[in-house]
Amino acid sequence: MAKGEFSLIDFISTHFKVPEGMVGIGDDCAIIPSYGEDTLVSTDMLLEGIHFLRTKASPEDIGWKAAAVNLSDIAAMGGVPTATFLSMALPADAQGEWAERFIVGYAEISRLYNVPLLGGDTTSSLRDIAINVGVKGRCPQGKAIGRNGAKVGETIFVTGPLGDSGAGLKAILEQLPSTPLVDHLIGKHLRPTPRLAEGVALRQTERVGAMMDISDGIASDLRHILRCSGVGATIELSSLPLSEELRQMCTLHDWNPTDLALTAGEDYELLLTGPDNLPELVEFPLHPIGTITEDRELCWMHNGRKVRYNKKGFSHF
Amino acid sequence: MAKGEFSLIDFISTHFKVPEGMVGIGDDCAIIPSYGEDTLVSTDMLLEGIHFLRTKASPEDIGWKAAAVNLSDIAAMGGVPTATFLSMALPADAQGEWAERFIVGYAEISRLYNVPLLGGDTTSSLRDIAINVGVKGRCPQGKAIGRNGAKVGETIFVTGPLGDSGAGLKAILEQLPSTPLVDHLIGKHLRPTPRLAEGVALRQTERVGAMMDISDGIASDLRHILRCSGVGATIELSSLPLSEELRQMCTLHDWNPTDLALTAGEDYELLLTGPDNLPELVEFPLHPIGTITEDRELCWMHNGRKVRYNKKGFSHF
Repeated sequence: MAKGEFSLIDFISTHFKVPEGMVGIGDDCAIIPSYGEDTLVSTDMLLEGIHFLRTKASPEDIGWKAAAVNLSDIAAMGGVPTATFLSMALPADAQGEWAERFIVGYAEISRLYNVPLLGGDTTSSLRDIAINVGVKGRCPQGKAIGRNGAKVGETIFVTGPLGDSGAGLKAILEQLPSTPLVDHLIGKHLRPTPRLAEGVALRQTERVGAMMDISDGIASDLRHILRCSGVGATIELSSLPLSEELRQMCTLHDWNPTDLALTAGEDYELLLTGPDNLPELVEFPLHPIGTITEDRELCWMHNGRKVRYNKKGFSHF
Repeated sequence: MAKGEFSLIDFISTHFKVPEGMVGIGDDCAIIPSYGEDTLVSTDMLLEGIHFLRTKASPEDIGWKAAAVNLSDIAAMGGVPTATFLSMALPADAQGEWAERFIVGYAEISRLYNVPLLGGDTTSSLRDIAINVGVKGRCPQGKAIGRNGAKVGETIFVTGPLGDSGAGLKAILEQLPSTPLVDHLIGKHLRPTPRLAEGVALRQTERVGAMMDISDGIASDLRHILRCSGVGATIELSSLPLSEELRQMCTLHDWNPTDLALTAGEDYELLLTGPDNLPELVEFPLHPIGTITEDRELCWMHNGRKVRYNKKGFSHF
C-alpha cells in the first residue's frame, strides 16, 4: 500500500504484543521458536490490477511468481521452506482454465524447490482475482538472519545483478516486440529465482549481519536494514552489478540502468551485510556495493565522490 | 466456490505430493510434524460482496469473525492456536478508519484467546476488500483429530445449538428491526465463538473418532466426515439442539428451525463422533444427534422414523 501501509502497521503493532522469544511484524518472516528450531512464516497477497494484469502475464507465470516471492522471504532469513498455503479468490471467468494453468506454474517452482502445497482456500470473487500465499520454513534455533544485525564497518553485498526485472517490466509495459534480449529480461521479471541455496549457505557462514530480499529496489529496501539496525550506509553506484543484457537494453532504449538497478525492484536477489572476506566463504558470487556506517544516513557515492541521487539520476554536489 | 471448488482442489492434488507423515489438503488444518509436536496450519480468505457486506456488518465485527473462523479450524483439530497472519487488500475508502476498526475487532478476539498476530501483508486493491487470515497452532504429536476417524457405532455429537447464526443472517438480510431476540441472533452470526477449550478437552479424552467445525451446516459438513472415514450416519432430527431464541424467532416469523439448523451453517460449534458416554468425560454439554453407520449413506430420522430431507423440510416416506 503506497500511502498508509506503515501507519496501519503501526496501528496494528499497538494492538498486539509479540510474545517473548518471537519475532513479529517488520522482518521478511515471523520467527516462532519451537523445539530446537525456529519456524519461519511469511504471507503475501497478490491482486489483479495491482500486482499483475491478466493481459500481461500468463497464468503459469503468475503462479510461478506468487510462489517465488514467498519462497524468497524464507531465503531472506537463511531458512529452508517446508510448505506453502494458497488461497485463491476467482471470478467466474478465471475458475476453469486460468486457475489450472496458474496451478501448473505454481507446481513447477514448488517441485523445483521440493516444497509441498499443504492447504489453502478457494472461493469465488465478484470481479478481480486475489491470491494469497503463505509459506512456512525452518531454521536452526536463533540462526535466522534478520534485518536488524547490520554492524558499522560491514560490507554490503548483493547476490546478483540488479535492474533486470525492472527492465523486463518496462519492456512489457512499452509492448516492445520480442527479441532474445527483450525475452530474457521479461523472463527475469515474470519468473524470479528465490535465492534459497544462497540464503542457507550465507546463514551457515555465521558471518552475515543483516539480510533481506530485494523486492522494492535497494534504494528503498536498504533503508529497512538501516532503520532496524540503527546504522547508516554508503553505496558506491559504480559497483552496482548490472547484467550485460541490462546494459545493452539501456543503450538501445536510452533507459537509465542505475535507476532501474536502485528503484525498480523485484529482482529477488539477497541484500546483506558481512565482513569483506565473506565472498571467500561461499561458492557463488557476492557483489560488494557499499559499507555500513555509523551516521544513520544513506549516502550515494560515484567513483568515490559523494553524489545526490534522485529520480532523475545522480548529480555531483 | 460454489461450483468448481472441488474440481480445482482435485486438480491441485494431482500436482502436489504430500510428504510422508504430513496431512495436506482436505481437513480443517494441514498437519506438519515437528519435534515432539504437530504444527497445525489453516488459511481462509474473506471477500467483500461474497463473505461480507460493508453495509451489513461493522468493521469490528468483520475483524472478529475473520479471526474467529480461523481459530475455529484449530479448535476443530483439538489444537491450541499459537499465531495468526493477516493479509489485507484495501481499496482507498477502506484504508483509514475501516481498516483500524477491523483491527480493533480482530485484536479483541485475539486477546481473548491469547493469540498473537505475527505477520501479514497490506496492499491496495482497486475496488473490493480482500482479507486472508492464516493461523498456526500446535497439538501433541499424532493427537490432532481429523475428519477420517469416525467408526461404525459411534455417537455423533455437537457442542451447542445449531441454526442461531443462520437466523441472525436472515434477520440481517430481511432488515428486521432491533429487538433483544433479533440482536441476540445477529450477535451469534457476527461474532461466532471458536470452541477452543472444548476442542482441547475433547482431544484430551482420547476417545473422539472424528471432529470438524460447523461452517456450512451439518447437512453438508457431516458428509466430509462420512467420506473421509468411509462410513455412513443416521441423524435424528428431533435431537438437533435448538436454542430457545431460535424457536421463538421461528415461531414469530414462520421460519423452519430444522432447515436453519441443518443448512444455514456458520455456527462454528464442533461436530464430532465418539462413544456414547463421551459427555461424562467433559465438563460442557455435548448433544447427541445421531449414530455412525456402516452403509456410507446419510439417513435422516424423525422420532425414530426414516424421513426424506430436502430444502422444503422433511417428509415421511
